[in-house]
Amino acid sequence: MNFLEEVILKEGQALSDQVLKVDSFLNHQIDPQVMQKVGQEFARLYRSEGITKVLTIESSGIAPSVMAGLELGVPVVFARKRKSLTQNGDLLTAKVYSFTKEEENEISVSKKWLKAGEKVLVIDDFLAHGEAALGLANLVEEAGAEVAGFGIVIEKSFQSGREKLLKKGYRVESLARVASLSNGSITFTRNGQEAWSL
Amino acid sequence: MNFLEEVILKEGQALSDQVLKVDSFLNHQIDPQVMQKVGQEFARLYRSEGITKVLTIESSGIAPSVMAGLELGVPVVFARKRKSLTQNGDLLTAKVYSFTKEEENEISVSKKWLKAGEKVLVIDDFLAHGEAALGLANLVEEAGAEVAGFGIVIEKSFQSGREKLLKKGYRVESLARVASLSNGSITFTRNGQEAWSL
Repeated sequence: MNFLEEVILKEGQALSDQVLKVDSFLNHQIDPQVMQKVGQEFARLYRSEGITKVLTIESSGIAPSVMAGLELGVPVVFARKRKSLTQNGDLLTAKVYSFTKEEENEISVSKKWLKAGEKVLVIDDFLAHGEAALGLANLVEEAGAEVAGFGIVIEKSFQSGREKLLKKGYRVESLARVASLSNGSITFTRNGQEAWSL
Repeated sequence: MNFLEEVILKEGQALSDQVLKVDSFLNHQIDPQVMQKVGQEFARLYRSEGITKVLTIESSGIAPSVMAGLELGVPVVFARKRKSLTQNGDLLTAKVYSFTKEEENEISVSKKWLKAGEKVLVIDDFLAHGEAALGLANLVEEAGAEVAGFGIVIEKSFQSGREKLLKKGYRVESLARVASLSNGSITFTRNGQEAWSL
């Protein structure tokens, strides 16, 4: 079992078959030590890729991203989430549907902070249906920049996000892959690959 | 001139007499190295206070808080901001008026992550009129916890926030204190005290 899986087993709650609550270290309360290890692992996985920027989305993506950016020595940009945006020529925007909240949001990044030629590591706290991840990838490509890959803290492997990203040819590195939340218990998958262990 | 003042002079833009834009390293793009120094400085200032938790508010408060929490070895909790909240007995809530957006928001923290007896360092990116800071202090006191003090990245000293907090007896440590943004130029104040220099 890797470090993050241990933390998830100890602290996470399977609220339903679909919902994993990890608000003690990631989504509301944040454990900076855990985030540092997560950031170091993302940096290790992408160190050779010539990353120039980390892109994430507010709010829970910020902590792991800042730790990864620190390790990689690159800036972090966080996309903002709004129900609807006033038109603004200075912004890159994408629509993101939230299955949890059953609403569509617009996410945006200033054109100043995401530019053609950049190699972007996209980091998020969760990968579920992949809507936020694809929206972030759209922002990168709208800027004329390149998605080097995704760094996901927790992947819900029983949902379709990973498949969607792989189908588009993206590299996906998830530090914990949750196979199931059935019957209140959390199980992981590795697909034969050891992502990391500490 | 301290490290942060140098970064602000180099990167900040006085958009008006009232508005300082620092979206290259704090509010939209984040410079993890700068945030690490900021976090280390907050930790140095409050190291002897027996801090058990850092409290901040999404989104721009998260990066400096996580770095401070890492240095202090304590968890961080970020309050969420909403236009209005559904009543929920598990939440501590406070109202915060935003002068910038001219609207009232509710901020909230789960009772699970802020408890009686804690000594809380409240960190935010900006101190202006003090509304967010006072709202965060209200959450701490509603929990029966104690505000050890405030750690502010950038204080707009020409607005009333600092005075309001001092009048309530709080300790306020601002790493950069902006005296004026008039005529598009940024000037700092120290009140005879060298807050830090790197």
